[in-house]
Amino acid sequence: MVAEILAVGTELLLGQIVNTNARFLAESLARLGIDVYYQTVVGDNLRRAAAAFRQALGRSDLVVSSGGLGPTEDDLTREAVADALGLPLEEDEAARGVVEAYLTRRGLPLSGGQRRQWSLPRGARALANEAGSAPGFIVEQGGKAVICLPGPPSELVPMFRRHVAPYLEARPDRGGVILLRVLHVSGVGEAAVEERVRDLLSGRTNPTVAPCARPGAVSLRITAKAADEATARAMIAPVEAAVRERLDPWVFGVDEETLEGEVGRLLRARGLTLALAESCTGGLIGHRITNIPGSSDYFLFGAVVYSNRAKEAILGVPGETLRRWGAVSRQTAVAMAEGVRRAGEADVGVATTGIAGPGGGTPEKPVGTVYFGLAAPEGAWWHHRVFTGERETIKQWAAQEALTLLRLYLAAPRTLDGFARRWDG
Amino acid sequence: MVAEILAVGTELLLGQIVNTNARFLAESLARLGIDVYYQTVVGDNLRRAAAAFRQALGRSDLVVSSGGLGPTEDDLTREAVADALGLPLEEDEAARGVVEAYLTRRGLPLSGGQRRQWSLPRGARALANEAGSAPGFIVEQGGKAVICLPGPPSELVPMFRRHVAPYLEARPDRGGVILLRVLHVSGVGEAAVEERVRDLLSGRTNPTVAPCARPGAVSLRITAKAADEATARAMIAPVEAAVRERLDPWVFGVDEETLEGEVGRLLRARGLTLALAESCTGGLIGHRITNIPGSSDYFLFGAVVYSNRAKEAILGVPGETLRRWGAVSRQTAVAMAEGVRRAGEADVGVATTGIAGPGGGTPEKPVGTVYFGLAAPEGAWWHHRVFTGERETIKQWAAQEALTLLRLYLAAPRTLDGFARRWDG
Repeated sequence: MVAEILAVGTELLLGQIVNTNARFLAESLARLGIDVYYQTVVGDNLRRAAAAFRQALGRSDLVVSSGGLGPTEDDLTREAVADALGLPLEEDEAARGVVEAYLTRRGLPLSGGQRRQWSLPRGARALANEAGSAPGFIVEQGGKAVICLPGPPSELVPMFRRHVAPYLEARPDRGGVILLRVLHVSGVGEAAVEERVRDLLSGRTNPTVAPCARPGAVSLRITAKAADEATARAMIAPVEAAVRERLDPWVFGVDEETLEGEVGRLLRARGLTLALAESCTGGLIGHRITNIPGSSDYFLFGAVVYSNRAKEAILGVPGETLRRWGAVSRQTAVAMAEGVRRAGEADVGVATTGIAGPGGGTPEKPVGTVYFGLAAPEGAWWHHRVFTGERETIKQWAAQEALTLLRLYLAAPRTLDGFARRWDG
Repeated sequence: MVAEILAVGTELLLGQIVNTNARFLAESLARLGIDVYYQTVVGDNLRRAAAAFRQALGRSDLVVSSGGLGPTEDDLTREAVADALGLPLEEDEAARGVVEAYLTRRGLPLSGGQRRQWSLPRGARALANEAGSAPGFIVEQGGKAVICLPGPPSELVPMFRRHVAPYLEARPDRGGVILLRVLHVSGVGEAAVEERVRDLLSGRTNPTVAPCARPGAVSLRITAKAADEATARAMIAPVEAAVRERLDPWVFGVDEETLEGEVGRLLRARGLTLALAESCTGGLIGHRITNIPGSSDYFLFGAVVYSNRAKEAILGVPGETLRRWGAVSRQTAVAMAEGVRRAGEADVGVATTGIAGPGGGTPEKPVGTVYFGLAAPEGAWWHHRVFTGERETIKQWAAQEALTLLRLYLAAPRTLDGFARRWDG
């Protein structure tokens, strides 16, 4: 079964919004083992939209569309599908129920255009919408199917999960499954990762292994295609083991797992508390740590100390250290980590100090220079990197590196001594 | 002139990445007055990619593609374009120069596949790539043009701006321009914004006005189509004035301007310094403030005080206040703002304290409850909101609302007294 994803919406053609629905639908169809050969975007124009549905039905078994199901005259998907399939539009009782249920929930009156929302191509099955007014629908014809979903992701995603995925899973002509497993690595660069797993990257067809880099993290995606999920899982397992063997202890998570989530899990498991002193990262590390529900159990205090005055007054960094070595130095980074650990009465203190740019660089300390400090009962460590990129990219790299330092302290103390250096005062 | 955007990449069909290039290209072409009727995504498959280029050339004057220009065997855009145009591939000296310049900059040796990167369809003009190894190219045929750009946005965006935009601006068959102007509003909800500008939203065809909402901000997009930029600007001006008249003082910026940038501009203009006390926002406000280059001039100190102990020890919030009113209360919010103003030796202190969820809510203070405090030489203010959504959404709303409170203090003190309440101890 081959599917095609078709988005209807002039706002996409004008570049006013990003087509995140296409990514969600593509990934969801891949997980169901359904191949997608084309994605198309067309505007709110009946002739071109109908032609796009006709073309998609000509070359694919399944067309999944997003958008164009609202109450206004711009919303033309119902008409376009009816035209492409040669079917009349008819009022549908179930669709009417979806619209009316929405209006009742919101205490809203029926507006004129809403009547259009329950006119569906003859034979269509309406799909309930828990988050908005627009009914989705499925029409089948000659073994093919058109599935039309509303444009807002907050409506499309639950409608797909609740109504479309079960429909597709039940279709007898569905092939096998495509299973993805993504391993996340930090603390080693993209080139070093690729070198260690080069033989796994090339020459394999199923499962395949492919790398993908973001600031401070490399992901390795293992993709297996099989008749069922258990077989795909069994195919992925040995490849995952091989990747882990070469990249331990740098693999910090899988699939949706994050570095801040893993750090939180480790702090909680070891009963340790954390304090952060951020200069160049400006609060980004605290923001990421506190994105994890329950982080108040282990995260006690974060100090964003942009000024030298705050570094001295709040963290007790000696004025002498700042004058002699500068705010961007290993000495200051360690003093900040020790100071915030003390001020926050935490078990572990982590600090960043650097130059995010675009101004402030010098020949000795160019833009992108960042020093990291970590203070713990066992002693202190420091680490140094020079990142390249725009201000926000440097902040992202630095936050990722600081969390990596903390993760190694918690999970792999032996590796920590190779990654960072012990502070001997 | 009608253009089509074509992305080549199996990773898009599998939903592994979002097609942000399509948004950038669509918006850039719209700004140049070039209509886009279709966007297409096709995988790394020579037959289907060539067919997609052939179809695009059949119905559009200009095809702009992204992806498939790398050195590996999956990178098939050069072959697909040559096939679609019936041209042979030939080694191109300029393209070779682009690849070699990249290798020299990075100190890398030539790898086998890279030779493929300088084989272009006969007659193509190579485009330099300042950020990567892949040359882009333009081929013209029969009055139509194909423009091929590399997939990574960090390479595609500068290549488009430096080489493609000037090429398109110089084309004699370009129509008029489409000019967008986006006004950003915060502090009033979407429904209230729409109510105030309802008559401007409907019934207009040129310029049009359309709203778009994100957590804590509503944008109004004014779009004008005209023969040239000056005319479009003149058409937008009265509509913008009408929007501003109805929404002042809630309009905080235009186009790429941000609330944190505007707050920074105002602090700098008034010579004031800032300190932040963040509980539920966890560092997000500091992160946003420090995304602005030069923010170290006015941002002195941020305290992320997740624990009550830190609220007392670092900010001097009285234990009695925390016990009597709770950490999530107007009393604590004001005490935090006053405390961080004092501890950071800043002119203005801003504080957030709330329940980001998913746990921690009570019937009186449900998840999403956030109190805000602002302390300044003239006195203190507090503000209260209950947001809905996931943890990260609530953090985003709360950060936006805190920055709005600060902006009103700096720019519209009279409105501040309606938005927030004066603290009278």
